[in-house]
Amino acid sequence: MTRVLLTTTLLATTILAFAGLPAFADDAALQKEAAGYFKPIPSMVPAVKDNAVTRDKVELGKMLFFDPRLSASQLISCNTCHNLSMGGDDNLETSIGHGWAKGPRNAPTVLNAVFNIAQFWDGRAGDLKTQAKGPIQAGVEMNNTPKVVEETLKSIPDYVGKFKAAFPNEAEPVTFDNLARAIEAFEATLITPGSRFDQFLEGKLDALNATEKTGLKLFMDKGCVACHSGVNVGGEAYFPFGVVEKPGADILPANDRGRFEVTKTADADYVFRAGPLRNIALSAPYFHSGKVWDLKQAVAIMATSQLGAKLSDKEIEAITAFLGTLTGEQPRVELPVLPVSTDKTPLPK
Amino acid sequence: MTRVLLTTTLLATTILAFAGLPAFADDAALQKEAAGYFKPIPSMVPAVKDNAVTRDKVELGKMLFFDPRLSASQLISCNTCHNLSMGGDDNLETSIGHGWAKGPRNAPTVLNAVFNIAQFWDGRAGDLKTQAKGPIQAGVEMNNTPKVVEETLKSIPDYVGKFKAAFPNEAEPVTFDNLARAIEAFEATLITPGSRFDQFLEGKLDALNATEKTGLKLFMDKGCVACHSGVNVGGEAYFPFGVVEKPGADILPANDRGRFEVTKTADADYVFRAGPLRNIALSAPYFHSGKVWDLKQAVAIMATSQLGAKLSDKEIEAITAFLGTLTGEQPRVELPVLPVSTDKTPLPK
Repeated sequence: MTRVLLTTTLLATTILAFAGLPAFADDAALQKEAAGYFKPIPSMVPAVKDNAVTRDKVELGKMLFFDPRLSASQLISCNTCHNLSMGGDDNLETSIGHGWAKGPRNAPTVLNAVFNIAQFWDGRAGDLKTQAKGPIQAGVEMNNTPKVVEETLKSIPDYVGKFKAAFPNEAEPVTFDNLARAIEAFEATLITPGSRFDQFLEGKLDALNATEKTGLKLFMDKGCVACHSGVNVGGEAYFPFGVVEKPGADILPANDRGRFEVTKTADADYVFRAGPLRNIALSAPYFHSGKVWDLKQAVAIMATSQLGAKLSDKEIEAITAFLGTLTGEQPRVELPVLPVSTDKTPLPK
Repeated sequence: MTRVLLTTTLLATTILAFAGLPAFADDAALQKEAAGYFKPIPSMVPAVKDNAVTRDKVELGKMLFFDPRLSASQLISCNTCHNLSMGGDDNLETSIGHGWAKGPRNAPTVLNAVFNIAQFWDGRAGDLKTQAKGPIQAGVEMNNTPKVVEETLKSIPDYVGKFKAAFPNEAEPVTFDNLARAIEAFEATLITPGSRFDQFLEGKLDALNATEKTGLKLFMDKGCVACHSGVNVGGEAYFPFGVVEKPGADILPANDRGRFEVTKTADADYVFRAGPLRNIALSAPYFHSGKVWDLKQAVAIMATSQLGAKLSDKEIEAITAFLGTLTGEQPRVELPVLPVSTDKTPLPK
């Protein structure tokens, strides 16, 4: 059996080589070059700074992630905009929040977010526990306050018990800060290892097809890797949108100056965190404005605006095919059964 | 060991009898009386009329149940208002839908809905497959059309494959009707066996405590069972809200005439399907108007309006305690990973 399989593999390799597709030696070189730029998503949950990822914390964090009672309306949960059924985002231009308000920017995916240098398009939250507090309080998102959230959690005995278990050495464990820590711990588990690209990086040279390999080569040679590298193929540093040529105002609206709002320095004008490209095929529409639905179009825009390069249709298709190999195994999540409200729980608004 | 346990049980029974609480013989009589009115939730998924509950259909139905692309905004799924984390409803007075519109009635739980005589508060849908088509098209709910839903599903190859598997003998399986059949099949699996009340019904006489047994007895003796009986402890027939005395307009708004809108006959004025009381402790607020958050208050209102009875606080507490024993094992649902949209998928509106 083993011998038959080996023979078939050799035969296939030979046929591929004769067909003019990349041969084994080139593949090894490509893999080596790629391994210099990228790292695979680990198969284990990563450690999180100042927040040990314990089982109790993850369990609590999962409940909170799915609990709409974190929002003033008690309709919107973290999962509403970071839908774990749909690549960890909402697949909308910009999110719909409290009162049907539309948010200013496209919701980034929560998947692998733990590997980003910082959170939000402008990196204004240094980590996921800081990020988690933002949407809960944003008027156009969950429109709630830490005080009401704490009142809500304290009114539900099961939650009080879960907080005690997750933060065992604290006298008053039910706090907004601990809620954020628990959500961060759960989100650290939302990683997607095993993509075909990661298999290739780890030495399975036939994990990508010829077009995808061409796309990977172009991605490195054309300079995409200057911003999109590392474990998340992006998400590691900040760059102006429109290094070479600013895209149209529909895609880069003038009134959203990006990281400028965080640093108030001129060099941060229209600067954004480079988009992490893991699972990018699952998270249309693209860019902070969410105005581009077609990944091929997004690639073309990036080429002209960031690299000053006009790519051919074939090149765009190859790069897009490569990006498709960044889709990893999606997290398997059993929906939590949430504890019931009591007569002390604040009512929805 | 067995002998020790028996001795302990006898001793406990003796003590309980001396304390003036129901003795074993009474419990058996109570169980027998209850078994004449109620039936346990079966532990197996029930058969559904004209819709075989197959594995493929259930899998597809689960995907559809969680897919926000059934709504025009692509934000609202069945699970938004029938949240399986929260007793199968949204725990809001009335649901929030497209454009933040508030619906006219409280969302009923999807749990055990398969056992109801018909669906909706006014029974206007004869079964779950008919029901499923309503909210998708309602302007204040998902605000979509069958045409756009079919276009959406047909644009996603994975869905086309799943429909073919679920409806293997059909030339054109991707239809709005088959979507409804698949959702109905999934919903038939959303049953909650194993409640303490069902354990009691099945002969475990210590599954209820003394207060709960008193509540059960009162529930039968006071006449609640006239409307609330059968497997769902309600949901089996239609009755006027306010048989004896109409509750206030806040609880029974004059402009919602209930089943009258369905039958257009005078005898259906302010008539509603008796609320199924399974998992009632999980699904506040109560009544079709959703105006009552406290289950004890709901019990008191039912007593005066339907039975002309003024219950004592102790009686109300006992009946409420009994209702708490109707909470069954909540379904364990792994969140589906939904297939990605394509360039042919209609955009959100």
